[in-house]
Amino acid sequence: MKVLVTYNMFRDGYSELIEKYDVTFPAEGQESFSYEEVLEMIPEYDVLQSMYNFPVTKELLDKGVNLKIVSNYAAGFENIDVDYATQKGIVITNTPDPVTEPTADMAMGLMLSVMRRIADCDRRLRTNELEWGLLDNLGYSLWGKTLGIYGMGRIGQALARRAKAAGMKIIYNNRRPVDPHIESLYDAKYVSFDELLAASDVISLNAPNTPQTHHIINKETISKMKPTATIINTARGPLINEKELADALRSRQIYGAGLDVFEGGHKVSEELLDLDNVVLTPHTGTQTYDVRNEMAAFVSRNIINFFEGGTVCRVN
Amino acid sequence: MKVLVTYNMFRDGYSELIEKYDVTFPAEGQESFSYEEVLEMIPEYDVLQSMYNFPVTKELLDKGVNLKIVSNYAAGFENIDVDYATQKGIVITNTPDPVTEPTADMAMGLMLSVMRRIADCDRRLRTNELEWGLLDNLGYSLWGKTLGIYGMGRIGQALARRAKAAGMKIIYNNRRPVDPHIESLYDAKYVSFDELLAASDVISLNAPNTPQTHHIINKETISKMKPTATIINTARGPLINEKELADALRSRQIYGAGLDVFEGGHKVSEELLDLDNVVLTPHTGTQTYDVRNEMAAFVSRNIINFFEGGTVCRVN
Repeated sequence: MKVLVTYNMFRDGYSELIEKYDVTFPAEGQESFSYEEVLEMIPEYDVLQSMYNFPVTKELLDKGVNLKIVSNYAAGFENIDVDYATQKGIVITNTPDPVTEPTADMAMGLMLSVMRRIADCDRRLRTNELEWGLLDNLGYSLWGKTLGIYGMGRIGQALARRAKAAGMKIIYNNRRPVDPHIESLYDAKYVSFDELLAASDVISLNAPNTPQTHHIINKETISKMKPTATIINTARGPLINEKELADALRSRQIYGAGLDVFEGGHKVSEELLDLDNVVLTPHTGTQTYDVRNEMAAFVSRNIINFFEGGTVCRVN
Repeated sequence: MKVLVTYNMFRDGYSELIEKYDVTFPAEGQESFSYEEVLEMIPEYDVLQSMYNFPVTKELLDKGVNLKIVSNYAAGFENIDVDYATQKGIVITNTPDPVTEPTADMAMGLMLSVMRRIADCDRRLRTNELEWGLLDNLGYSLWGKTLGIYGMGRIGQALARRAKAAGMKIIYNNRRPVDPHIESLYDAKYVSFDELLAASDVISLNAPNTPQTHHIINKETISKMKPTATIINTARGPLINEKELADALRSRQIYGAGLDVFEGGHKVSEELLDLDNVVLTPHTGTQTYDVRNEMAAFVSRNIINFFEGGTVCRVN
């Protein structure tokens, strides 16, 4: 079997795949194959191992006359024309598991950084702009506060586990209530979205980007939140109307926000950059050495199991 | 009863005390009474409610001829000559409880901020100094990592609860092993200090400052740590030889550090200020609105219960 890997990732996680199959990576010093390069090479490959942002188009799927499986390095698969792959009988796989706990850590880390003003203080301390008095740099405790989780999937639940251990009460909104057993694990209570807005001290977005979730945080929904509320987004940028959130943060209509994802992808709204009540990270929700290696092992396992039997994380 | 409060704190937490007794606060606009002012006023007071950094000296205790109790606004009481107060039959009380969970949150927040590079990325993102690539800004996952807690008291245990929920393994070193029931709550294992140094991915200091703990983190002990290790200090500055830690961070001998306390008190070593693998906060471990009000309620309760019966948190 011939496997084409589009990105020059560390090899640690690929060791089993490399042992079993004929695997092509970009040459040393080249970060990744371009779309054009892959288009030219794809006819002779059985497997494409694509990165999260590599476009797997109709054109590419048509050219891949020997293609049996596209193993995507991501929990999402927006980069792939899945419907067309399904029509052609090409299997698409993803890697949901390795990203769950690290993304929940990121949500928790942003929450603590906003509520306890960690990033803000670190920045001002380095430029000698802060006072150390008893009533300076005050943030909010987590203990006894209410966390509203919008989207109670794997990541929402992993966040609930952490927040409960920090003494928070958990409420959530989801397309439908989760299993009562899961609710009882976290003492989590299902509420309407309006109740979530009104009752939460912290709202964490953990839902996918769909027409229903698009701009779910906007001027109107922000107006229903507590003046001490904090918003955390480690899910998808378009869930928030970034301009309207920036206005609310600037006027101190709410307490703060922690954002790992942005409407403009790798472009953060200028309005956010000089605010001290927001913590901004460059989509690092899953950016750890551990995740990189675990995901490489996961895409490899999806490919090997597809050919040899075993669990394959299929999305079609 | 006449109560003298040295600091102009928000009144919310003091409402019951104010209702029951004759309470004197500094005048509006004055942050706190000076030592000299208190020395002059103290003879007519039954109660002194001191702040954590207000010196309660032999001289002051001698002048306080009607003094029955000093209710200190702090978990610590290094600001008070406790032995001399004991000789004179003056009761000293402290406020350990309200600080436990917020300090554990701070340790967790610093750990996440260092391991996931939150403060570092936030700072560089605002100045457009960072790349967003797949192998940029990589940190470390918490899941499966080993947290070594040095000092398994209330705060150490509250941190263990959080870290366990994030999938970490807990080892600890303490003057003596804690109750097996507590160990089993957190799957925590007692180890020697040398084992703690060698086996931990993160070491959190949660011990008091004593001759035994002074500079417990130094060049020699750092040399026994993993090259990927992170050190968190939310306890007391002198536990770390700050200069030797800065050297180790600069040469990347270890991965990072999160520091809320410093050897020089409110003065951070210059060597630390330009390092990107350290997160620095200005002793904000208990700096929340919630803690300020809870501690005011706590010092009030210590005073009221002393006179009317009930639990008093005495240190002598």
